[in-house]
Amino acid sequence: MLKKYMIEAIAVTKEGLNNGETPFGAVIVKDDRIVARTHNQVWSTTDITAHAEVTAIREACKNLNTIDLSGCVIYSTCEPCPMCFSAIHWANIDEIIYGADIDDAKRAGFNELEISNEELIKRSGNKLKLTRDFMKDECSDLFDIFVAKNDKRVY
Amino acid sequence: MLKKYMIEAIAVTKEGLNNGETPFGAVIVKDDRIVARTHNQVWSTTDITAHAEVTAIREACKNLNTIDLSGCVIYSTCEPCPMCFSAIHWANIDEIIYGADIDDAKRAGFNELEISNEELIKRSGNKLKLTRDFMKDECSDLFDIFVAKNDKRVY
Repeated sequence: MLKKYMIEAIAVTKEGLNNGETPFGAVIVKDDRIVARTHNQVWSTTDITAHAEVTAIREACKNLNTIDLSGCVIYSTCEPCPMCFSAIHWANIDEIIYGADIDDAKRAGFNELEISNEELIKRSGNKLKLTRDFMKDECSDLFDIFVAKNDKRVY
Repeated sequence: MLKKYMIEAIAVTKEGLNNGETPFGAVIVKDDRIVARTHNQVWSTTDITAHAEVTAIREACKNLNTIDLSGCVIYSTCEPCPMCFSAIHWANIDEIIYGADIDDAKRAGFNELEISNEELIKRSGNKLKLTRDFMKDECSDLFDIFVAKNDKRVY
């Protein structure tokens, strides 16, 4: 796990925040190369499914021309919701590394589905590697930026 | 709940099967009008997130020009997986009506995430209405068509 990839996920999240999106970003890495780099695009695309991880998976599938993302690692600024976790599961991604968690998102007003990634991994029988709290402070700061904007569009 | 909408979901699933897709379809209805009608498009679009319910939600968001699908009902030929359930949750859809279930999908070779919609509703605190087993035989038949094609692309 490399800081430079989470730094990139934080950078793309800030690009999203500057464009009126919500504070979530993700980067997918394969063989030490970024194959997707996206922020939440729910508002700009009018697509409630366009969470950062989902848009990253779509982009990685497109860039690698496959639905099988075995060998990939996803860096997410926040713990993936069950929609995003399940997308990661179906994509056969090897590893999730995230920074902030569901509680941080809730503090910023997001109405989270409270099923942790740890539980989802156990329930799915998936062998996903999971690293929590990676650069947690820097990732949590993204929620502070969002809250300071007084943005109530918590999707 | 009206049979004509599930009949439409079954019809669009058959269109997908004829085009090499897997046996899942969904229709979203608002005010007695179909606002989305799609089948699984994972293979045709090389997008592992393109399950029938997710593509239907994207289409409904686009057609209604909103991320808020309150007042909508989704008819799905099979019990939504946790990715699709969570997308339905985020979209504020009022009601899920499904035909076949996770066990039917498993019998056809699909590797399901075994968390039922009933449990997900309880865990999410969502007030979604849920109807199971609606036209179950007709929906289960779609898996038989898939199996008879000897198609192993179970995504």
